[in-house]
Amino acid sequence: MAVLPSWNAGAVRAAILNFVTRITKEGGPDYVPPAERIAVFDNDGTLWCEQPLQAQVFFLIDRVKQLAAQNPAVKERQPFKALLEHDLVTLQGLGKQGIMELFFATHAGMSVEAFEEIAAAWLASAKHPKFRRLFPQLAYVPQVELLAFLRENGFKTFIVSGGGIDLIRGFSERAYGIPREQVIGSSARLRFEMLGDRAVLMKATELNSFDDREVKPQNIGLHIGRRPIFAFGNSDGDLAMLRYTKTGAGQRLALLLHHDDDKREVAYDREFRISPLAEALDKAGDYGITLVSMARDWKTVFTEP
Amino acid sequence: MAVLPSWNAGAVRAAILNFVTRITKEGGPDYVPPAERIAVFDNDGTLWCEQPLQAQVFFLIDRVKQLAAQNPAVKERQPFKALLEHDLVTLQGLGKQGIMELFFATHAGMSVEAFEEIAAAWLASAKHPKFRRLFPQLAYVPQVELLAFLRENGFKTFIVSGGGIDLIRGFSERAYGIPREQVIGSSARLRFEMLGDRAVLMKATELNSFDDREVKPQNIGLHIGRRPIFAFGNSDGDLAMLRYTKTGAGQRLALLLHHDDDKREVAYDREFRISPLAEALDKAGDYGITLVSMARDWKTVFTEP
Repeated sequence: MAVLPSWNAGAVRAAILNFVTRITKEGGPDYVPPAERIAVFDNDGTLWCEQPLQAQVFFLIDRVKQLAAQNPAVKERQPFKALLEHDLVTLQGLGKQGIMELFFATHAGMSVEAFEEIAAAWLASAKHPKFRRLFPQLAYVPQVELLAFLRENGFKTFIVSGGGIDLIRGFSERAYGIPREQVIGSSARLRFEMLGDRAVLMKATELNSFDDREVKPQNIGLHIGRRPIFAFGNSDGDLAMLRYTKTGAGQRLALLLHHDDDKREVAYDREFRISPLAEALDKAGDYGITLVSMARDWKTVFTEP
Repeated sequence: MAVLPSWNAGAVRAAILNFVTRITKEGGPDYVPPAERIAVFDNDGTLWCEQPLQAQVFFLIDRVKQLAAQNPAVKERQPFKALLEHDLVTLQGLGKQGIMELFFATHAGMSVEAFEEIAAAWLASAKHPKFRRLFPQLAYVPQVELLAFLRENGFKTFIVSGGGIDLIRGFSERAYGIPREQVIGSSARLRFEMLGDRAVLMKATELNSFDDREVKPQNIGLHIGRRPIFAFGNSDGDLAMLRYTKTGAGQRLALLLHHDDDKREVAYDREFRISPLAEALDKAGDYGITLVSMARDWKTVFTEP
């Protein structure tokens, strides 16, 4: 079977194939040994759909519904009220980090294992409001192919997301073939505790890392300790990571997905305030970042229902 | 060739072989799928020699010598004076975290790539004062065999060390077969900067993480996101990680190396104040941690010179 079958022929697909051919050619001038073949991908809007809201936010809304069922007063308190009413203006006012902090606050005080169970149950049951399918089924087919193609060529693939690290770990292996330990994301602090004879890690309220913008390359330094040679993002939050990747020595490829496909997914760019992306679109050319058009470059977007 | 040839026959070697046999037996009651076969190892005193001081401290001393050559006033300032004079009492007063903070302070303001070059040059030239060999050659042969044996059985092996993450990454692949991204350690904060057109990560002064005691399992949660099933340590700083490993469900193995071999390495325990280990030795039995005697259980300690 041809490689990357869900990618249309064109400059972008050719650039990916050409890059991989060059860096894997032993004895060639651009050869990169397998250990250094690090590829990093943003998640929301890059590997799966982030519209009308990131899956994380839908997860948070469902969590707040559960909390409100136990304590109805929650329904009247902001920002919970805004969440329950899908009040986008108020949510945009919180910003990505504010939403993330709220997310961590609503899961504080439970062990990482307890959270895993909640996440697994949600991922196996919650449906996207527009596409009417489970969230992990909103993974983009061309990206799943690209991840597998890179791994077949000796790459180690990582997620570097602004989303909560533990939620992504709940489906990354199944949806993308990326194991838990290759997921980097936003995180709350963990606290080691003995519950009787059993050692556990409890989720604390305080933010450990909001993995966005310049924090993405910083966390790549911490978790991976190598400069990636391949990066894929879709928003201003990915620019630092894309530039960190692109400005290393030798062959590098940095890609930015443009959501311009209102028929098959959603067309949006400068107006998406929860995750701004105007700068990325405006500056991609200056920074040597390859723009990927969903409408033009992808033959398929989602798996058949 | 027999497995683990540098391990003497006995209860410890049998426990390791028995554990690996059980958790890899498909269809057996103790089977663990490969993705969950996570093994974590402390570094100083577990994978290589930490006496009379950790390699990190010798590295720091050499760095301070360089700084003193540029600025002789450094020689008279504490704690630099104590380092240059190998003044153990003053160094013990600083403690492990104090030494680590000093280490980060002396490398602040350089890029991670610049540090990598310094570390590579040091690792390729500095010699241990007693054993008269390069520090990476102080890796324990039985542990190198054990790491390889675990990987052959589908394990992913990680280092979880109180030492500086970037220094360990400078030799972990070569000495232990552990890639940079599977090293967790103490770290300074990194700062993303643009130097002209080039994006870099600069090492900052502030501590990001002092990876010791309860921080070890917390960092395992952050970096790996799975509870290990196998852990190996040698000091009180490893107890939380050993207990986190040991108290999960199913088969688990946690090991503690006792340095009781004055002929081939060094015999020490309760008196080593830079890295206390009395509690670990006293409580290992209560906690179900298997004590490994270097004198009894290891046929060889180091490679032939």
